[in-house]
Amino acid sequence: MSDRPNVLWIMADQLRFDYLSCYGHPHLHTPHIDALAARGVRFTNAYVQSPVCGPSRMSAYTGRYVRSHGSTWNGMPLRIGEPTLGDHLRDAGARAVLIGKTHMIADREGMAWLGIDPASEIGVRRSECGFEPFERDDGLHPDSARQKWSAYDDYLVSHGYDSANPWEDFANSGLDENAELMSAWLLKNSRLPANVPEEHSETAYMTNRAMDFMTDAARDGRPWLCHLSYIKPHWPYIVPAPYHAKYDESHIADPIRSAAERDTDHPLLRAYQSSRVSQSFSRDHVRTHVIPAYMGLIKQLDDNLGRLFAWMDAQGHSNNTIVVFCSDHGDYMGDHWLGDKDFYHDVAAKVPMIIADPRPAADSTRGLVSDALVEMIDVAPTAMAALGCPPKPHIIEGRDLTPILHGTNGFSRRYAISEHDYHWSEMARALNVPQEDAHTTMIFDGRWKYIRCEGFDPILFDLQTDPLELSDLGRSDTAEHADVRARMQAALLTWGLRHHTRITATPAVLAGQQTAATEGILIGFWDEAEFEAETGFPFTDLTPAGRP
Amino acid sequence: MSDRPNVLWIMADQLRFDYLSCYGHPHLHTPHIDALAARGVRFTNAYVQSPVCGPSRMSAYTGRYVRSHGSTWNGMPLRIGEPTLGDHLRDAGARAVLIGKTHMIADREGMAWLGIDPASEIGVRRSECGFEPFERDDGLHPDSARQKWSAYDDYLVSHGYDSANPWEDFANSGLDENAELMSAWLLKNSRLPANVPEEHSETAYMTNRAMDFMTDAARDGRPWLCHLSYIKPHWPYIVPAPYHAKYDESHIADPIRSAAERDTDHPLLRAYQSSRVSQSFSRDHVRTHVIPAYMGLIKQLDDNLGRLFAWMDAQGHSNNTIVVFCSDHGDYMGDHWLGDKDFYHDVAAKVPMIIADPRPAADSTRGLVSDALVEMIDVAPTAMAALGCPPKPHIIEGRDLTPILHGTNGFSRRYAISEHDYHWSEMARALNVPQEDAHTTMIFDGRWKYIRCEGFDPILFDLQTDPLELSDLGRSDTAEHADVRARMQAALLTWGLRHHTRITATPAVLAGQQTAATEGILIGFWDEAEFEAETGFPFTDLTPAGRP
Repeated sequence: MSDRPNVLWIMADQLRFDYLSCYGHPHLHTPHIDALAARGVRFTNAYVQSPVCGPSRMSAYTGRYVRSHGSTWNGMPLRIGEPTLGDHLRDAGARAVLIGKTHMIADREGMAWLGIDPASEIGVRRSECGFEPFERDDGLHPDSARQKWSAYDDYLVSHGYDSANPWEDFANSGLDENAELMSAWLLKNSRLPANVPEEHSETAYMTNRAMDFMTDAARDGRPWLCHLSYIKPHWPYIVPAPYHAKYDESHIADPIRSAAERDTDHPLLRAYQSSRVSQSFSRDHVRTHVIPAYMGLIKQLDDNLGRLFAWMDAQGHSNNTIVVFCSDHGDYMGDHWLGDKDFYHDVAAKVPMIIADPRPAADSTRGLVSDALVEMIDVAPTAMAALGCPPKPHIIEGRDLTPILHGTNGFSRRYAISEHDYHWSEMARALNVPQEDAHTTMIFDGRWKYIRCEGFDPILFDLQTDPLELSDLGRSDTAEHADVRARMQAALLTWGLRHHTRITATPAVLAGQQTAATEGILIGFWDEAEFEAETGFPFTDLTPAGRP
Repeated sequence: MSDRPNVLWIMADQLRFDYLSCYGHPHLHTPHIDALAARGVRFTNAYVQSPVCGPSRMSAYTGRYVRSHGSTWNGMPLRIGEPTLGDHLRDAGARAVLIGKTHMIADREGMAWLGIDPASEIGVRRSECGFEPFERDDGLHPDSARQKWSAYDDYLVSHGYDSANPWEDFANSGLDENAELMSAWLLKNSRLPANVPEEHSETAYMTNRAMDFMTDAARDGRPWLCHLSYIKPHWPYIVPAPYHAKYDESHIADPIRSAAERDTDHPLLRAYQSSRVSQSFSRDHVRTHVIPAYMGLIKQLDDNLGRLFAWMDAQGHSNNTIVVFCSDHGDYMGDHWLGDKDFYHDVAAKVPMIIADPRPAADSTRGLVSDALVEMIDVAPTAMAALGCPPKPHIIEGRDLTPILHGTNGFSRRYAISEHDYHWSEMARALNVPQEDAHTTMIFDGRWKYIRCEGFDPILFDLQTDPLELSDLGRSDTAEHADVRARMQAALLTWGLRHHTRITATPAVLAGQQTAATEGILIGFWDEAEFEAETGFPFTDLTPAGRP
């Protein structure tokens, strides 16, 4: 194999860390993802930088925290001046290619202001988080003004699934006993088989497109990173046969929740619990009806990854391709009396993260389970290192995971950070929180998870004594754990005031700024004697020719 | 006059707030600046966002804090994606024109990466903080590799001052009794008359260029903001006759310093005091020798502004031009045993700020002295309002001062912030502070000035009981003022975690993100009945045609 491997970065959407057998799910067997873990490193403390698609992905694709790139919520354009992984890799002569979802919205205003044509090569890249789009599909095409016709829609039509919105009518709807079209936007329809055979589902289609890309890329010859980004198991929760019938109530783990949680007097937590999706998933009949479909979607994904990995083996790609598997955030599914995501319990903010590196240097770590505190923004610098891109610590805030993959020292992190901007939400409206203040920040040190809620008490969990995060120790009116709260708040202040935007000067440039005195900028010298005594050369030599 | 006045934004460099007679200097009479204050509002609590040229100016020109624009030190390029006042004004059909210094360095790497030609109209603007350069001169052309030939050099040569570096040999050197050229880079030469007559000095030249611009602009007809940016009284400290001889030791105020300050055990303050420039200006003979030249430079500036204002009156510009006068930071001149700037005592971080608005709405405030807590970043939104540019609160962090200028309510600020990145300095090297940690942040509420020093105790001054800032109350090992320190630290955390980079979504766009449910993204609805009960319309109507 070459010493400059390619990177296949697989991302599932809304996949909980604990819904894979290698992460301990008792009934959901995912042998192909487990096999990937067996030949790589499986991380048990991987956190996303925001518990929601858009900002989590913008952090993944820039290697930077949400407060740094500024795209704090879904649909908020990534500013034109924000460098991405794709830009760094291109500088190093590698390709960065997208297949599937990014949730990116182009900064049209920024492009106009800098005279960049959105249709130009640079404009197209800027519209795709710096990726070269081989196949772009954000995978949400509701039957509305938001609908965008996708290549997958064309594919469905070409296979006879004709409608004004094939994505919705076939891939994301089911048929009832009267062959009536039932929308998977309604949870009660989750258990119907999707109105499309598995081989024509979106998951299967994207898997095929990844094979198409690798075949093309082998001809092209340039090293590459391919971001294979599946929309599922994200809602709408519906899966084709036979996966719709693989699981039932008997396969569902009990909800992670307590009566005490429900009685919380924390205004923000109460507002989250009162949101419609939380109310809905707090009803047992909803959980037990929907979770089997969610499990089916994950099982289908695992089978497709098995198909992909087998093909890569047969084509000789596996021995030269680092495979990263992760998701962009989890799904509460009623745990903690909450639904969807948007907050920081492990089921939402912690994700599966598996990296299998075929290089001999990684032989000593195959099957390793690492509890190192890692962040989604670590994937970008790890891929940069693998593809021969020099580190850019002035831009990239994540940390290269290669030392862990190769069993060497050199990786450390004291705190993981995640951020959420809830200006858009029922919670902000219910509590009358202004746009500017509707944000929360999680800082986690491996034991203590401290959640700052602007304008409210913090929330604090001790994962050592309370791994399920059932009791909040954050109340400011109790002396207990005041020391922990103070330490975590101090750490958050240090992190918050760090340089998140000082991206135009490398460490070498910064170091170079210490030399002004030898460039004729002389500050505070009284006379020639003082100058000579301090600098070691005569003032008369201070000429362009004579200057040291 | 038109209801859309022009704006002349005059900035001096390194001018202390207290070296003008309207700000109380006993011996330095500045009648023309005083007259501007008499017809406008004079601010006595105006703070810069960094106590050093480059970052202070990048904040002034973007209306954003240093942590937001990321240009944290001199010579650090302003990132290509950072919007500036000039961009906003152009959107509103006004010109933003530069005459003199910005300290801007172009982000060449960013331009290359976005395919922007530095020589194109957009490239040139991006290289000048968004200004249209009528005359660009950063006013520092040491005899070194850094030297750049300027239009002012051409001007000097055209008037017979011929040399390889006319800026240094004539404008910034003097002649001793033997007609020997003596460099003003050495402080001992500060009292010599500059080797150029006053009418050909840089200050006079830039004043003339402002007249040239206003004459051209009157023909052009578009409304404008002109940034007239003088390099003086910034070092090299030397001034042409007769100003070199106007002041002597008898005109110098006593230094603001105490023995207790010199004995501080704060490591960072000690390191500042130990720097060469501080050691130098802590010597009385240096202060008494240099300050008269500094005063002469200010007196010369005032006379040139008198000449400019008289010309504007004669040409009819005054009644349609808002005049802003300020500086980018102060100068310690040995106060607090410190030299140059780079820290937060009022003599360095507080600046003169005078705004004279000719509009009738401002008649009620002529001569007003305002102690409102204002920041340099407030000038940009004030100019935007005057020139008819809609506010951009998602980008601009400063606050429109028009309510103060027009005697109405609507301006308020609880805290002023200033930041400094000292990675480049002797202090960082002496204390072995890594690049990432070498930063300080000031937060001031009008009474308490709290200075966070990463890795060290904070520094705290009570300006109510200690207006000269002689006693530091920041020691963390004393209970006294612990409550104040805790409150200021909490305020700093709130500020630090605010959205400083969420610039791609206006408040209206943010508000619009609350409507997903009506666009077909349905989260958590169990069935049609639940949907209809909550949304008020039948699920069957949820079609592109039928959707409300």
